[in-house]
Amino acid sequence: MENKTELVIKMVLDAWNIELKRTNTLLNELTDDQLSKEVSPGRNTGVYLLGHLVAVHDALFPLLGLGKKMHPHLEDIFITNPDKSGLPKTSINDLRNLWNEVNSKLSEHFNQFTSEEWFQKHTSVNEEDFKKEPHRNRLNVLISRTNHLSYHRGQLAFLKK
Amino acid sequence: MENKTELVIKMVLDAWNIELKRTNTLLNELTDDQLSKEVSPGRNTGVYLLGHLVAVHDALFPLLGLGKKMHPHLEDIFITNPDKSGLPKTSINDLRNLWNEVNSKLSEHFNQFTSEEWFQKHTSVNEEDFKKEPHRNRLNVLISRTNHLSYHRGQLAFLKK
Repeated sequence: MENKTELVIKMVLDAWNIELKRTNTLLNELTDDQLSKEVSPGRNTGVYLLGHLVAVHDALFPLLGLGKKMHPHLEDIFITNPDKSGLPKTSINDLRNLWNEVNSKLSEHFNQFTSEEWFQKHTSVNEEDFKKEPHRNRLNVLISRTNHLSYHRGQLAFLKK
Repeated sequence: MENKTELVIKMVLDAWNIELKRTNTLLNELTDDQLSKEVSPGRNTGVYLLGHLVAVHDALFPLLGLGKKMHPHLEDIFITNPDKSGLPKTSINDLRNLWNEVNSKLSEHFNQFTSEEWFQKHTSVNEEDFKKEPHRNRLNVLISRTNHLSYHRGQLAFLKK
């Protein structure tokens, strides 16, 4: 069954990479001006959603036990507070760079994980609970974040002409 | 490694069920009147997206080798043609029922699949290619359709007040 487990890790990683690729294609199509607009009237702007995605992906480093966030200041602006908080936003150009930087660094880690490491617990669950709930592992976090990315990509798509 | 494979199948199925549950919560919040509106100006209506999701999930029966579609007429209206095709749409009330019916029937199958059956090929790949590309299996289709559902749920969410 070793092969099956390796295979399914590849499937989950492929889904993550496909979703990232689709998002990057979309982001490359969108101008900074388009990204600065609300994705739908009264809803989040593209820049907020991009910042939100960077911040959520950056939070994967501590959650997966890979070290500290690269850009911890993003959490306050793009997760804790809503778009219209009045907090100064990181520039779109900077966010585009941070998005690529964070995802590249994550990929480096993901490509080095052994099968065993993917099934290790994430850092929000304690040892005792993890014994009873072994699905609360790193691979499960990746499944969840892939869906999170799809959700917001569906919204960002409305910025296209 | 048997246990790891069983575990990861549970994780993928859980992700599907969580996404379905969130979508159902959203659909229950939305009135028929809200669903009949465009999710964003000039974009698909809620009813089209709901019909699209029913049709895509209905197509899982043949794709996963589980028999014929329950409602094959939906493909033409909600997949092949766009929202403004002029084709008469299934009523929202009927679509709500078909959505639940199709997903319930899929669940019955999913709950009965053995681990081995999840890793069998889907019907769009031939035996020869499947030998070289064993990731083209039923479980992979489910990962992909979960992301598809997240994508459109992100859009349907804009129908909320």
